[in-house]
Amino acid sequence: MTTYYPTVNKVEFEGRTSTNPFAYRYYNPDQVVLGKTMKEHLPFAIAYWHTMIQDGTDPFGGVTNKRTWFGNSEIETAKNRVEAFFEILSKLQVSYFCFHDVDIAPQGNSLEEFFNNLDVITDLIKEKMDETGIKCLWNTANMFSHARFNNGAASSNNAEVFALAAAQVKKGLDIAKKLNAENYVFWGGREGYETLLNTDLAFEQDNIARLFKMAISYGEEIGHKPQFLIEPKPKEPSKHQYDFDAATTMAFIQKYGLEGDFKLNLEANHATLAGHTFEHELCVARSYNALGSIDANQGDLLLGWDTDEFPTNVYDVTLAMYEILENGGLGKGGINFDSKVRRSSHEMEDLLLAHIAGIDTFARGLLNAAKIKEESFLSDIKEERYATYKTGIGRSILEGKEDLKSLTEYALEHDDVELASSHIEYVKSLLNDYIYSDHSNTIKVQPIRK
Amino acid sequence: MTTYYPTVNKVEFEGRTSTNPFAYRYYNPDQVVLGKTMKEHLPFAIAYWHTMIQDGTDPFGGVTNKRTWFGNSEIETAKNRVEAFFEILSKLQVSYFCFHDVDIAPQGNSLEEFFNNLDVITDLIKEKMDETGIKCLWNTANMFSHARFNNGAASSNNAEVFALAAAQVKKGLDIAKKLNAENYVFWGGREGYETLLNTDLAFEQDNIARLFKMAISYGEEIGHKPQFLIEPKPKEPSKHQYDFDAATTMAFIQKYGLEGDFKLNLEANHATLAGHTFEHELCVARSYNALGSIDANQGDLLLGWDTDEFPTNVYDVTLAMYEILENGGLGKGGINFDSKVRRSSHEMEDLLLAHIAGIDTFARGLLNAAKIKEESFLSDIKEERYATYKTGIGRSILEGKEDLKSLTEYALEHDDVELASSHIEYVKSLLNDYIYSDHSNTIKVQPIRK
Amino acid sequence: MTTYYPTVNKVEFEGRTSTNPFAYRYYNPDQVVLGKTMKEHLPFAIAYWHTMIQDGTDPFGGVTNKRTWFGNSEIETAKNRVEAFFEILSKLQVSYFCFHDVDIAPQGNSLEEFFNNLDVITDLIKEKMDETGIKCLWNTANMFSHARFNNGAASSNNAEVFALAAAQVKKGLDIAKKLNAENYVFWGGREGYETLLNTDLAFEQDNIARLFKMAISYGEEIGHKPQFLIEPKPKEPSKHQYDFDAATTMAFIQKYGLEGDFKLNLEANHATLAGHTFEHELCVARSYNALGSIDANQGDLLLGWDTDEFPTNVYDVTLAMYEILENGGLGKGGINFDSKVRRSSHEMEDLLLAHIAGIDTFARGLLNAAKIKEESFLSDIKEERYATYKTGIGRSILEGKEDLKSLTEYALEHDDVELASSHIEYVKSLLNDYIYSDHSNTIKVQPIRK
Amino acid sequence: MTTYYPTVNKVEFEGRTSTNPFAYRYYNPDQVVLGKTMKEHLPFAIAYWHTMIQDGTDPFGGVTNKRTWFGNSEIETAKNRVEAFFEILSKLQVSYFCFHDVDIAPQGNSLEEFFNNLDVITDLIKEKMDETGIKCLWNTANMFSHARFNNGAASSNNAEVFALAAAQVKKGLDIAKKLNAENYVFWGGREGYETLLNTDLAFEQDNIARLFKMAISYGEEIGHKPQFLIEPKPKEPSKHQYDFDAATTMAFIQKYGLEGDFKLNLEANHATLAGHTFEHELCVARSYNALGSIDANQGDLLLGWDTDEFPTNVYDVTLAMYEILENGGLGKGGINFDSKVRRSSHEMEDLLLAHIAGIDTFARGLLNAAKIKEESFLSDIKEERYATYKTGIGRSILEGKEDLKSLTEYALEHDDVELASSHIEYVKSLLNDYIYSDHSNTIKVQPIRK
Repeated sequence: MTTYYPTVNKVEFEGRTSTNPFAYRYYNPDQVVLGKTMKEHLPFAIAYWHTMIQDGTDPFGGVTNKRTWFGNSEIETAKNRVEAFFEILSKLQVSYFCFHDVDIAPQGNSLEEFFNNLDVITDLIKEKMDETGIKCLWNTANMFSHARFNNGAASSNNAEVFALAAAQVKKGLDIAKKLNAENYVFWGGREGYETLLNTDLAFEQDNIARLFKMAISYGEEIGHKPQFLIEPKPKEPSKHQYDFDAATTMAFIQKYGLEGDFKLNLEANHATLAGHTFEHELCVARSYNALGSIDANQGDLLLGWDTDEFPTNVYDVTLAMYEILENGGLGKGGINFDSKVRRSSHEMEDLLLAHIAGIDTFARGLLNAAKIKEESFLSDIKEERYATYKTGIGRSILEGKEDLKSLTEYALEHDDVELASSHIEYVKSLLNDYIYSDHSNTIKVQPIRK
Repeated sequence: MTTYYPTVNKVEFEGRTSTNPFAYRYYNPDQVVLGKTMKEHLPFAIAYWHTMIQDGTDPFGGVTNKRTWFGNSEIETAKNRVEAFFEILSKLQVSYFCFHDVDIAPQGNSLEEFFNNLDVITDLIKEKMDETGIKCLWNTANMFSHARFNNGAASSNNAEVFALAAAQVKKGLDIAKKLNAENYVFWGGREGYETLLNTDLAFEQDNIARLFKMAISYGEEIGHKPQFLIEPKPKEPSKHQYDFDAATTMAFIQKYGLEGDFKLNLEANHATLAGHTFEHELCVARSYNALGSIDANQGDLLLGWDTDEFPTNVYDVTLAMYEILENGGLGKGGINFDSKVRRSSHEMEDLLLAHIAGIDTFARGLLNAAKIKEESFLSDIKEERYATYKTGIGRSILEGKEDLKSLTEYALEHDDVELASSHIEYVKSLLNDYIYSDHSNTIKVQPIRK
Repeated sequence: MTTYYPTVNKVEFEGRTSTNPFAYRYYNPDQVVLGKTMKEHLPFAIAYWHTMIQDGTDPFGGVTNKRTWFGNSEIETAKNRVEAFFEILSKLQVSYFCFHDVDIAPQGNSLEEFFNNLDVITDLIKEKMDETGIKCLWNTANMFSHARFNNGAASSNNAEVFALAAAQVKKGLDIAKKLNAENYVFWGGREGYETLLNTDLAFEQDNIARLFKMAISYGEEIGHKPQFLIEPKPKEPSKHQYDFDAATTMAFIQKYGLEGDFKLNLEANHATLAGHTFEHELCVARSYNALGSIDANQGDLLLGWDTDEFPTNVYDVTLAMYEILENGGLGKGGINFDSKVRRSSHEMEDLLLAHIAGIDTFARGLLNAAKIKEESFLSDIKEERYATYKTGIGRSILEGKEDLKSLTEYALEHDDVELASSHIEYVKSLLNDYIYSDHSNTIKVQPIRK
Repeated sequence: MTTYYPTVNKVEFEGRTSTNPFAYRYYNPDQVVLGKTMKEHLPFAIAYWHTMIQDGTDPFGGVTNKRTWFGNSEIETAKNRVEAFFEILSKLQVSYFCFHDVDIAPQGNSLEEFFNNLDVITDLIKEKMDETGIKCLWNTANMFSHARFNNGAASSNNAEVFALAAAQVKKGLDIAKKLNAENYVFWGGREGYETLLNTDLAFEQDNIARLFKMAISYGEEIGHKPQFLIEPKPKEPSKHQYDFDAATTMAFIQKYGLEGDFKLNLEANHATLAGHTFEHELCVARSYNALGSIDANQGDLLLGWDTDEFPTNVYDVTLAMYEILENGGLGKGGINFDSKVRRSSHEMEDLLLAHIAGIDTFARGLLNAAKIKEESFLSDIKEERYATYKTGIGRSILEGKEDLKSLTEYALEHDDVELASSHIEYVKSLLNDYIYSDHSNTIKVQPIRK
């Protein structure tokens, strides 16, 4: 049997003192945290595009990545990639994967040929799934790379492009059924505009909603309606993308009555490009009961484009995992590494090393967030901070018993309110003990002597 | 009678060749454009806070503005300001004004005292309104400057602050009725958070909606329900403001079922701080039928804070006015100069000169936008660009006759679609003729010879 | 003779009322402005890479541009491109061009093969130059696209890469001599870092200076020392580029004593990516007597990457041209369109239309700037603003006659200084008359009545 | 004796398990790290302006901070502040302080009165210094808040303002001598421009250099020439500040030949506002031998203004401390907390708690950086990465033995170089062990098996 990593064994948990680069130092799949195993808390997925396709090119430079799966034909390469992909998944003990249609199979010279190629490769993938028990977290159709999608897919000015997009979505749903994917993602990289001068924004969004409703119907028809996920991103490649961020996407979902079927797939780097922290986006989604799944990576806040770095920022991941714990987990969703190795990490081994780094970072984040939760560190702060809403006038407001007149009466007699200090610097210093340590000695907020 | 500008007469239209700094060169109130007078197209308003209160301080420096209305007591100064304000409005021929409660009257030592002061001053304002025919476009309550609003007003963690906010809103609606203001604005400068660590985002937004619903009820009760407007701004003074931008606010409005009563008051500088062009925000609002009113100013895209400059960018204002024309005007709304003189423009005269600059800029923008509309310059481009949706498969999609299966069949036989070039550089060059000229010779898009 | 634009004739000036898309409406090469022809003021150059090579790909999408010069081999395509390029230059009446080595010739399988290909193609280019009178403004070596330059060229951690870079520079200077290019450009897209964690910043900059000094020596040796130009850019593709902006590059130039031989090639889009206006960068370069040449384009301030759009913003170009006029022109430098057609402008014709748009924009900018200069609009403002330095204490300071003690004595008796208002809103409004009109009626600043 | 913190004792090191909010958990002044005590490594200073003056106002809100030192007159308040300040310094065990002239004394009605007030208060400060052994790290003149400095101080368009600035600098140097301050800082918050339209950038910078040279001369004259420090900041309050960042300031320093006497005072938040990491700015300063002192704080990369938060980001501080260790410490400089409590931390206690948070963060950062240095974690990576420069062609390049011709010969025979992978994700994962842990088990980079 072919192996692409002959010298690397299955990556196992070896603990913090291991000096083996191909071991987990924090991720221990079977370790129980807050009543569930790490493996249950962290349904990791690997992204086909970054891991199998990405070659290191950037807008100013050519291929750098060295890959050993190129064959004598496109289809042979595609098949080799499936082998290699499942080897990587298996060796990393990752249970899920995600892909675009164009990642896995050559597009050929016609749509028909493309669909045939998809059938061939998904047969092979299904075989590997059965063999390994690895599952498909979600699939999607790439409706942004082909020249025809230059002005959008569902939002294209050209109706024929809409039809072509619809065909790819249908095929995507057929594949979702075949591979039993529980989610189906829409990322609208070209569903936006280059310039408003020639764009009918409302018409284009109507059309996107049309396609989404067709997808819901078709899912119902074939008896496999996955959880649909929209992945917001503010800009890039388009000047503006309609699914700018979580809140924008919720405005769209509500406008078109898609709440029942659509949730959000949120990405850390997309959050920061939109001017938000990742935990903010997660929190907004939660407030709409729409947190579906996440794309794990990190950006560089000093850069204005999507860098899709492997997540190694333990601090940020801790706060994200805290939101996920508060959400009761991700339901059908998972944690997909939409991350690519830096251009200088061009060896085959880097694909493993980078995922190990990301997985250990999430394991650390989970452990930190669990500790914060276990000790009610943040929840106690909030409990106290909003205490005035539990009794008296606060309670009465929440119970709907007040109006502007009654509150004015109250206010005229109580206009000397003083807010308590947040002691936020102290809180952040204590929070550091949960994040920058081994948890042997975390400390809860102490009352400040007066 | 007191005058604050003894040497300046009423500012009149004198045409492009006038060398009088205190004349309009473009704004001719009675000039008819697309069937309406300029005055009807451009319902200008002056903002009390920037014009009467702003003193030139910034986070690193003290007062620079020289103002002649300071009296021997706060209330005397407040009265002088009313005189001066109506002189400015009258001399500039501006028909509307906007204000926060705290702008016009001293807050005194209690809420009661504040409300009494408001009564005194609004009596005076009403007198001046009757005298001059000038109207109140909108008023609002400042629920962000007082220390008590540090953590928000309706979204404060402290229920007593909610009550105090409610009292100010009630008073604001009473004043709106008294002054017959057709709009009432909410800008939530502190309705957001400093840190998510101690914030219950969903709870806080529920509370904001509670206050908004009380306001609707109270308006109905007193028989003066103005058009309520939310003014989005992404951040500053808070780290994050809930009404981040137009789309975010529409998500909120829909979530809480406020569509009937709430529209948006959009500001140019807030748009760019959120990562959008102003025309984008206007267009988004239009797509939700929620364009209420605008705050006219401009920001500096290389700076990360709200500079509230007087609008002098004719290009940007043209595109904004085009959206407003497409919207059929602003309805009950208007064009409020939420603009302040630069710190170096500290003379009394600068208040007039700056408004003249802004008004002439909007007059130019209107003339340009009207020409674009009259000649169907942009609408023809869109018409042609979306032509495939008028017949055949496009029409069938819009009529709801297609589904994923039928479209797949279609696509398999039509997978060779090619998009037409947008010739966008050519379009932009022609657009320049509408904006950077006197319109003697604008040129429509010509077909490109092949 | 082959033609790539059979239906387009030489693009001529036809005036503002022309409806011919392939005509200049503003650029009239022979029109005299401030004593020089437009052609002399505006030494336009076309960039080989954007016009001949760019295919429409972006990080999320494939080829869109339709080009008719592809032949049966790389070398044939390369030759066809030379033909097409000179046809474009000639038809557009553009007198200069710029290129990277890799733009014009296939790299082959070895450095030797690459150099041979360069010889073949530069022979052909020289032939076309002689035939048409068109000149090479500058050439450069692409030392950022090849995988070997991943960590930099002169600043690479690998000494062999330094040697390869040196070889390309030598060949570049040989070509500069052969084609009589008056300038030679260094753009260090990879001369920077991905992360400081593994970078020796000081060592890397020393090495860059080493290469630059070798280039100076070699230029002297072969008797063709062009004006060397460094092109600053803050980031992209690297996380940080050493030549961040004009000032940073001047720090480097001074540190290594390169002032005599090196000037700056400044680009509009790079300026804004660094947080500056283009006119700022030009002005900084002027203050160091180092304004060498410019790359004409425009960015989108709401996007965080280099969009290299064709310049159509007349306002910005006016301010840039004003700086260039103040500099007495660009000397040996020129105005190189480092601009690419938008992805949706994928037809062959768009290459012409886009350059026409850019050229007309610069013609407008020149006319506006010349009018501002002719009427001393801005210079009068400055003259008055700094007037206190012409006499008394101001003059004495400039003459070096004062010290802290004498000035303290003066200040203690003159501590009541008041600044004059800048009336900046009024100034901007008048400036609009120079930019947004046909100059029939521009108006100088009028004194404000007191 | 008056005390402002009657219930708080001297803040002592109590170790990581302490639950006392008024204790250090990491900062142990006497603990020896890399051969020096923590106290020596970390010459902390407290900033008078943030700690004693800042009142919680922001551009949209009023005073929030509760302070107990207000007396019946300005001068009494000023004296109380000195008492309180030294109590804070003493209780926090901080050995240095920094101040602007206007922080410590009322400006009165004339320059003379201001100078007299400065004499009174500096007498008191000197007394407290003698009593406590606490030292002045640096002082500076505030030449940006007064209305007269609206257009700059040394760079003002008005020569009388230059004289007034000179007088403040003279007084500042007299005070520096009196208090034996080893550094003197220039921060040019208004040394920049609001608009280039009315600005002579080169003239203004010449004038700044004139003032700096006068300062050097005067320091020599009075026998107390402190180390002069320029503090870069890109923008805010000005649209552009001349001392944009470290590199820009080095360009200025070199242009005017100030290298001997001027170094840089670098601030974390100013670095990020300029688009850089703090460690980048420190590294650039080091490369020019110009790292003078630091202003410790942190910004919010999602906000576009100076937030001056207390530093609690252990990761960033570790990388900054690593640069400082590489620099051999800060020499005469120190670590000044240019940090202010958040608006919601408005209690007196928060001033202590926030400094404790910042100090513990730096202690952690020092411990982490020392561990990285001790184990050669990063230096080994660099050592290996640049290894090709130690022998062969690399060594020959460094020794100046090569030129473009010799290198071309070499390159033609060695054009197949391949770069080693950076394994940067693996490196970052290991780095986390140095930062997010208690250092019981950090792991050096292991060779990757091939």
